[in-house]
Amino acid sequence: MKKNTQLTEKTVDTKRIYEGKILNLRVDDILLPNGRSAIREVVEHGGAACVVPVTEDGMVYMVRQFRYPFNEMVLEIPAGKMDPGEVPSDTAKRELEEEIGQRALELTYMGEIRPSVAYLTEIIHMYLARGLTPTAQKLDDDEFLHIEKYPIDALIDMIMDNQISDSKTIAAILKAKITLDREKAAKN
Amino acid sequence: MKKNTQLTEKTVDTKRIYEGKILNLRVDDILLPNGRSAIREVVEHGGAACVVPVTEDGMVYMVRQFRYPFNEMVLEIPAGKMDPGEVPSDTAKRELEEEIGQRALELTYMGEIRPSVAYLTEIIHMYLARGLTPTAQKLDDDEFLHIEKYPIDALIDMIMDNQISDSKTIAAILKAKITLDREKAAKN
Repeated sequence: MKKNTQLTEKTVDTKRIYEGKILNLRVDDILLPNGRSAIREVVEHGGAACVVPVTEDGMVYMVRQFRYPFNEMVLEIPAGKMDPGEVPSDTAKRELEEEIGQRALELTYMGEIRPSVAYLTEIIHMYLARGLTPTAQKLDDDEFLHIEKYPIDALIDMIMDNQISDSKTIAAILKAKITLDREKAAKN
Repeated sequence: MKKNTQLTEKTVDTKRIYEGKILNLRVDDILLPNGRSAIREVVEHGGAACVVPVTEDGMVYMVRQFRYPFNEMVLEIPAGKMDPGEVPSDTAKRELEEEIGQRALELTYMGEIRPSVAYLTEIIHMYLARGLTPTAQKLDDDEFLHIEKYPIDALIDMIMDNQISDSKTIAAILKAKITLDREKAAKN
């Protein structure tokens, strides 16, 4: 099969199954590149932003919250859904303030992560936040979480030891570490 | 709020919305830690395995395939859903053979990734595959993909440049790079 050939799948019909609070579900009838029929289950999600808040001395603010699908407390970086019309950098700033009560003088874009390309439309935009200054934490009425703080190198070890498994947290912390190391190397 | 407090959410009722081919959807009525009611939308998925196949000279086999939710060709590591009753290491070996036509003498477990802890039960197990020997590629009838090969350091740069955005691919390649670097450092 030739490289760069577009193996496009064509939509024939769409059945909307569920319209919800944080996600929708649709099931599409499609045509495969070989002309055969198949279905595609697609979970629609409006997108999110996440942020690695790093202090001057290399500490990272994390949040630990109950995650219902796993029935356990999960350690993550601050993150949240984009409000309608909101640009991702504003989501990152808002979540930083709401969840850990910090503002950032410097916000560096670190790219996007697509949690599950096979069946989920969600894109999460990743940021590195520096120049942190404290402000009031503003959790939603129905939001409950603990704030924790770790040296970034301890988080790398926790990722390598499988103590951190949330996808955006793994991707954003490892990218933050490389970003910081590369900046340091460029200065020397 | 005290650290380590379990902020548990209790299930009151479950409504099954959709039972599908690769996922199910349910919507639960729950009680929050403060006693108030809320709903939780949960996408159920049976889990998967992915694998970073690295050659002796540091090249990584990748696959590029059409991903319907984004209507584009996406660069990823080999991966696939676990068959019912299959252990994740067998899934990794099977996908390695089916998608890129390789067997691995050495398979190293690199932990798990949860693509979206807020509403998705999927867990993807990550492996590093070494000691590769060629065998026949065995794609499903309805599976279409291109095999590509990159130096691992080029993939790191592509991740940093936002050319790779698939969550399992970012996490597994960055963890593979650290694993290989740590092994090398331990030998010297």
